[in-house]
Amino acid sequence: MIRMNENYLKLHSSYLFRRVAKRVAEFQNAHPDQEVIRMGIGDITHPLPPACLAAFEKAVKEMATRATGYGPAQGYPFLREKIAAHDFQARGADIAADEIFVSDGSKSDAGNIQELFADNIKVALQDPGYPVYLETNVMAGRTGAFENGRYRGVVYLESTAANHFIPRLPAEPVDLIYLCFPNNPTGATMDAADLQQWVDYARDNNALILFDAAYEAFIRDENLPRSIFEIPGAREVAVELRSFSKSAGFTGTRCAYIVVPKSCRVYDSQGTAHNLHDLWQRRQATKFNGVFYAVQRAAEAAYSPEGRQQIREIIDYYMANADLIRREISALGLAAIGGENAPYIWINTGRDAWEFFDTLLHQAGVVCTPGTGFGRCGENYVRISAFNHYEQVQLAMDRIKPVLQPIRKACAAG
Amino acid sequence: MIRMNENYLKLHSSYLFRRVAKRVAEFQNAHPDQEVIRMGIGDITHPLPPACLAAFEKAVKEMATRATGYGPAQGYPFLREKIAAHDFQARGADIAADEIFVSDGSKSDAGNIQELFADNIKVALQDPGYPVYLETNVMAGRTGAFENGRYRGVVYLESTAANHFIPRLPAEPVDLIYLCFPNNPTGATMDAADLQQWVDYARDNNALILFDAAYEAFIRDENLPRSIFEIPGAREVAVELRSFSKSAGFTGTRCAYIVVPKSCRVYDSQGTAHNLHDLWQRRQATKFNGVFYAVQRAAEAAYSPEGRQQIREIIDYYMANADLIRREISALGLAAIGGENAPYIWINTGRDAWEFFDTLLHQAGVVCTPGTGFGRCGENYVRISAFNHYEQVQLAMDRIKPVLQPIRKACAAG
Repeated sequence: MIRMNENYLKLHSSYLFRRVAKRVAEFQNAHPDQEVIRMGIGDITHPLPPACLAAFEKAVKEMATRATGYGPAQGYPFLREKIAAHDFQARGADIAADEIFVSDGSKSDAGNIQELFADNIKVALQDPGYPVYLETNVMAGRTGAFENGRYRGVVYLESTAANHFIPRLPAEPVDLIYLCFPNNPTGATMDAADLQQWVDYARDNNALILFDAAYEAFIRDENLPRSIFEIPGAREVAVELRSFSKSAGFTGTRCAYIVVPKSCRVYDSQGTAHNLHDLWQRRQATKFNGVFYAVQRAAEAAYSPEGRQQIREIIDYYMANADLIRREISALGLAAIGGENAPYIWINTGRDAWEFFDTLLHQAGVVCTPGTGFGRCGENYVRISAFNHYEQVQLAMDRIKPVLQPIRKACAAG
Repeated sequence: MIRMNENYLKLHSSYLFRRVAKRVAEFQNAHPDQEVIRMGIGDITHPLPPACLAAFEKAVKEMATRATGYGPAQGYPFLREKIAAHDFQARGADIAADEIFVSDGSKSDAGNIQELFADNIKVALQDPGYPVYLETNVMAGRTGAFENGRYRGVVYLESTAANHFIPRLPAEPVDLIYLCFPNNPTGATMDAADLQQWVDYARDNNALILFDAAYEAFIRDENLPRSIFEIPGAREVAVELRSFSKSAGFTGTRCAYIVVPKSCRVYDSQGTAHNLHDLWQRRQATKFNGVFYAVQRAAEAAYSPEGRQQIREIIDYYMANADLIRREISALGLAAIGGENAPYIWINTGRDAWEFFDTLLHQAGVVCTPGTGFGRCGENYVRISAFNHYEQVQLAMDRIKPVLQPIRKACAAG
């Protein structure tokens, strides 16, 4: 009898963004004339930078006369070398091209990397956090049942107003630590001193950090680290996720990469060290066949002088949205963080997040993302995304104001 | 301490094609002037069909003014509807568009689907067979140690000259069965009566068949089934892999699909049935973000009248190569099968496959794939691929003849 992976039965709800999409679809079916402004899912609204599109067209033309056979599973050297030089070596981070694995997305990488670890490791992850980290570990059987909003057996690293949304080191030993900075969903950032503490912790405990830097392009404070590999000692205890999705607008184009340093170690049950890079290479060679050639050429163009300039302009545009959202929300008297070095604004709604989501959807026709979907610490929060057209953000803010002002007054009176 | 998945330590050798590539690279470094003819890995040599390329260019142009945000994780309806109509409904197979999941490759799908099943199911797979089926189950811990060329705990379905390379039903109960027809590497095909036996077996035993039909476009015998869903009763007990790689030349472009019928069931430890379609949808929504829009538009064009005609011509071209290879190899007195409804020719070399591989590489400058990499039944076989330019195939045959004739004579004398 074909038996199922029963860990799937532990998953307590459908994937956050699918649930949001379902509610929005129901609303739109009921109100076909109402234009809904989507400020929920972090999806880009700008086309690819012209430099990337030009590289794309050129590559597709090449394909008219040349068979694009299987490429290297790890990615073409032309792209990996650009990544290593620009994203790491130029910032003093000692990462070589052969430590970079090009992939079809950070969601895939984040979901797949846990396969390399034992079933019984202790996992620590941020609450709130990107659901993929947690759910892929649930599917792999590293958690117990879901009770009171949390899975048993997981160490939740709470990020709340009390700790300025920077989690403290865990009180108990953990083995695999997911950190995401600039953070999704809070928009919080970690400085080098904070991050050094985590690297030191990982070194002291033979733990591994999965550092998700998908939003590093939004960092404006020059003093903040953009990569964990800018921190001394990280090469032995960290892997890093990066993506072209939010920087160069590749969300639907699918290109990302993961950095697995050759000095990174994992251990067998005898305590013998093994090379994580070799294991990941083996995994990818067996289950993955690389990224489309033309997509890698387009990604390469993101590093050209024109590409870099165009990306900077697009990011500036999104960050102007973030400034506006943060200002307007704060003016309504709601506490909000993020939006300074990240495209997300995290708002304390003062009530249940799904209820707030429904209010905004039904009364303002605006979609936000309920913080509940990111963990228990998000129960009273929503995430608003700066990926939008400026005029739409203005319109959304104009619609939100009359809806939220009475709530604020009622709260003040109550 | 971050412990590893120790199942990786059971993997007995590096991935077959990497090992071949390494030997070829070593040879080329030592003989830089020798032109090597690659008849090993099944990679296309023709550019994309012009209809697909035109659709591609059009889609990339669209992207200049439109943000290509995240697409549906399951694939765009425009493509899934074409697939359902042309590949299934037109042949009387009852498959709907929402049972199709578009992916970045059959290797990924074949590697990922096993995540949905329990750790302790009994797996049956063809020997010889595509290594990904076996190795992903090794990584997941469903096998014991590697001993005498095989992993303990796996049921090997032997495909040999004695059974005309069509395996018999297993003697012991199995839960998950991998079948690939037209077969990689042997090129053998299964007729409807053979396949019906397997469907009946799966129904009688609540087993599941993973049917890999990546090479269905090469079937020329109109009486052979192209899909397992042409067989009555298969909808409840089978999933099917399909790919645009070998049909429309998408190997480096990355587009495939898996069919998971809504009536397909898996069971929990209480014996309660669960819907496999829902589980796969949950897996994909959590770990995958869909395929690039322009690639799906190019795949859609494979179903246009021009696209279908162009693909037919390319396949005819490859099949002329297959005819030539089979004729020449047979004329050398070696037993060969395949090449009639498949792009692979499976050759009984009469000696160790890696030794034969080295002889062909060093004496003829021709690369084949050692059958050993596909399983113990391939120990004395090599696979030759018909994906090539006709002139190259002719040249390869001319070079092989003088190398193999003395061997034949020695064998005859010995």
